[in-house]
Amino acid sequence: MKRLTTLLLLLCCLPAASAEQPPRFDRSVQTAENFEAAIPRPQQDQAVAAKLARLQAKTGRRPNIVWLVVDDLGYGDPGCYGGGATVGASTPNIDQLAASGLRLTSCYAQQTCTPTRSAVLTGRLPVRTGLVRPILAGDKITANPWADEVSLPALLSDAGYFTLLTGKWHVGESEGMRPHDVGFDEYYGYYPAQKEISQRVDDRRFPGLVLNPERLAAFEAVGPSDRLTHGRKGGPTEELAAIESTDDMAAADQTLTDFTIKRIKELAAGDQPFFIEHCFMKVHCDNFPHPDHAGRSEAKYPYKDSIREVDAQVGAIVAALDQAGVRENTLIFFTSDNGPQMDAWPDAGYTPFRGAKGTTWEGGVRVPGVASWPGVIPAGRVSDGLFDLMDLFGVGLNLAGVASDKLPGDRYYDYIDQASFLLADDGQSKRETVYFWWGKELMACRMKEYKAHVKVVIAEAPHMHIDLATVRDVGLAPWFFNLYLDPKEEMTVGHRLDPWMATVSGKLKAHGATFKKYPPKSIGL
Amino acid sequence: MKRLTTLLLLLCCLPAASAEQPPRFDRSVQTAENFEAAIPRPQQDQAVAAKLARLQAKTGRRPNIVWLVVDDLGYGDPGCYGGGATVGASTPNIDQLAASGLRLTSCYAQQTCTPTRSAVLTGRLPVRTGLVRPILAGDKITANPWADEVSLPALLSDAGYFTLLTGKWHVGESEGMRPHDVGFDEYYGYYPAQKEISQRVDDRRFPGLVLNPERLAAFEAVGPSDRLTHGRKGGPTEELAAIESTDDMAAADQTLTDFTIKRIKELAAGDQPFFIEHCFMKVHCDNFPHPDHAGRSEAKYPYKDSIREVDAQVGAIVAALDQAGVRENTLIFFTSDNGPQMDAWPDAGYTPFRGAKGTTWEGGVRVPGVASWPGVIPAGRVSDGLFDLMDLFGVGLNLAGVASDKLPGDRYYDYIDQASFLLADDGQSKRETVYFWWGKELMACRMKEYKAHVKVVIAEAPHMHIDLATVRDVGLAPWFFNLYLDPKEEMTVGHRLDPWMATVSGKLKAHGATFKKYPPKSIGL
Repeated sequence: MKRLTTLLLLLCCLPAASAEQPPRFDRSVQTAENFEAAIPRPQQDQAVAAKLARLQAKTGRRPNIVWLVVDDLGYGDPGCYGGGATVGASTPNIDQLAASGLRLTSCYAQQTCTPTRSAVLTGRLPVRTGLVRPILAGDKITANPWADEVSLPALLSDAGYFTLLTGKWHVGESEGMRPHDVGFDEYYGYYPAQKEISQRVDDRRFPGLVLNPERLAAFEAVGPSDRLTHGRKGGPTEELAAIESTDDMAAADQTLTDFTIKRIKELAAGDQPFFIEHCFMKVHCDNFPHPDHAGRSEAKYPYKDSIREVDAQVGAIVAALDQAGVRENTLIFFTSDNGPQMDAWPDAGYTPFRGAKGTTWEGGVRVPGVASWPGVIPAGRVSDGLFDLMDLFGVGLNLAGVASDKLPGDRYYDYIDQASFLLADDGQSKRETVYFWWGKELMACRMKEYKAHVKVVIAEAPHMHIDLATVRDVGLAPWFFNLYLDPKEEMTVGHRLDPWMATVSGKLKAHGATFKKYPPKSIGL
Repeated sequence: MKRLTTLLLLLCCLPAASAEQPPRFDRSVQTAENFEAAIPRPQQDQAVAAKLARLQAKTGRRPNIVWLVVDDLGYGDPGCYGGGATVGASTPNIDQLAASGLRLTSCYAQQTCTPTRSAVLTGRLPVRTGLVRPILAGDKITANPWADEVSLPALLSDAGYFTLLTGKWHVGESEGMRPHDVGFDEYYGYYPAQKEISQRVDDRRFPGLVLNPERLAAFEAVGPSDRLTHGRKGGPTEELAAIESTDDMAAADQTLTDFTIKRIKELAAGDQPFFIEHCFMKVHCDNFPHPDHAGRSEAKYPYKDSIREVDAQVGAIVAALDQAGVRENTLIFFTSDNGPQMDAWPDAGYTPFRGAKGTTWEGGVRVPGVASWPGVIPAGRVSDGLFDLMDLFGVGLNLAGVASDKLPGDRYYDYIDQASFLLADDGQSKRETVYFWWGKELMACRMKEYKAHVKVVIAEAPHMHIDLATVRDVGLAPWFFNLYLDPKEEMTVGHRLDPWMATVSGKLKAHGATFKKYPPKSIGL
């Protein structure tokens, strides 16, 4: 820590000095070799530390953290992101949550599910942990990636938090890889994505599997669990009801929401601060809306009805925090794990950007990101500052008061502690660059408003953006886009139109070089 | 009128009757052979009539009408439509205007400038008036289309309003076709689009013209006027300063805004209600931002700086209405004349939709539409109800108390009086269908959330959406899209996926049939 302190002191002197020098294009500064460089904002950090100290003096405890993660929600689905009724489903509760706090417009996920979910819990890129793509039926991994990872829930649990994951997991379901094995005190949910369960019971969409007993048996031998599972750290794991029909699938998210609300009531009355990651099963295909919502969205399609359902459940969870009297001591963060999955269309979301889930175009990785904390985050904030969902790892550590020197020094950390970006009255992002990977390939990076692709995913079939897509090298020079001028990444500009291409490409190369000293882990995916 | 009254009485009885019958897919009803069918909403109409009568009893005069028309602004440019800082230019004033009233998310223009501007003033589709495309340098038209058209400003002027057009006109600059010839009491502005003027003075972008005296002389012999022009109905037309440099071009919009603000102060102090159409020169290419805004948007590009400038001028005009004490007796409507013009990129706007100006894809025709009227329109309204900018013709007549029987009966009217949609507390659209034309070709229609294309404009060059585009027939069946599920018009659904295709196509055919009894006018464009 001494080295960090010296550096921080040095950085505090920077503003006066830099006023006399032209500002650098790359404003980020690395404080340790194995930590991602961040833009120094010492005054903002101090203001937020003081704000949090005042709140803690008042409440007598550290703040709670609640993440609401929707599966495959598109950037353009919520009303507050330009969607809502305009694209077939109003989202009054999500819109209200955004209006109450900060709405991020450059918030990034990984391009698929497992990579995002694991990165957020480890603060590390999927290629570093080995979790480079979803684990699917029949996959056999060669090592448990969690064996030597240090998860946020483990750190928070050690620091006195009660940590709960409700809902979809999809980061390993064998012993040692389950939520309650890797740091969560409690788990209540389903391991896989909706489709992996519903395809076993939906004889209208998948008759070739459901109506064919031999094939169904073969699939079940390798397929993921269809059971609602309840586990506690170090305790027994109970397998509860199985999904036996599409009606059961329709009911799943309400069951999960009821559980989270029950726990919120109990935890709010207890002594421990808590961290809850509530992972919706919806709106990943295949969607079967709850009967309360079926046919009640503007579009009356299953996907859109499911948006309506998720929106109502977001509202119910927020209301539960309110009613339990802990809303003003809780950071809520609402997001999606990746862009919409378009090969399931029309059971799919909407992004105004190019591409979709499974690509590193903006459509695959730019997601809604809403932070709400009445009394801490001023209402009505909107920011286009860069935010990587991995930064939630750093925000969590900050709020729980866990110093970064609790982390092992033998590995690279990609997160940035962005607590002051989210929580300062006019917080500015500390992230200069977001890197995009596709499996084990470094594809692209965003730096300020620029994005440089060295490889791209191109759809081989019209309109399909994932399963029928191929990775291609872009040629001699990166495909370079200015997202302020060209949000849809249609018109690449090179050296002729922009002098920063080499600078941004240099960042990409420097990022790649971190893997020389800190080699990636492989688990056979 | 007797026939209309009888019909209205009949319609008032409908709700009770229809409660026993299944709702019809096509809810629109034609009240006269030469008027576009509308969805009857008698209770909503009555509520708004009562609301307006109460206001008039209080103010002692009819309400003012102010239209703010930006040139080539993209649907996605304003912050309140998902753009703003996210795409390089914050728009706090436009966002505030939207928050104060009603933000329309399915508001439609024609696909280019002159067609939209003339349609809004005549209540008739361009193909009916002959103004099917912009009048460009060298065009010789064979007849004055205005000779037998009855314009909204003429009707409002006759009804006691003072009518003013400030800014861009682009619907004819020869005598008989100028704003003050066709109904406006006063005109102060420039006839053509920015580019037609700036290309004569910008020796960096157009050296081949500007630095070549012979070619410049040849162009000026056929080109449009570069003069600021001031005219009064029946009075002399003064040609004021010419644009002699790009600096002059940069200053133009502020000059126009100052003029509108000056007139607002004078008119508010007078006895007449007023109708002002303020048409910005910006953000049509080529943009030279005013020095107060150059380099001050987030992106610091001329287009984005010009967005910042227009936003500030919108704020100044709204503030002038406020300060003159007439804001609560004024309907403000803010919009764009078509989608962004992408062959000028990066001096071009942003739409999340497919296509751009010059196409009948959503990117070409769906535009921002904001109605603000404190005390009449509740703050924070958002509606996806269909609105065609031609409907502003009907709203204007309604507010001025001009009955539709003042209109000639020998022609077809495409507008719908949507005053009650805009002004009722929870107003619903009365428009069931919007039709899209490209020149003299009927291309597409939207009905509810569906859009059927019988012809499409396809870009011949990558990324370009207008000058290099070609019209194509779509084949045997319309290309049919559900805009709730597929806002980007990427995945056409036919009979197999939607049972309404034939119904919507039937509307298209019925629309085409109106031209048999009411043939289109040709003026040689």
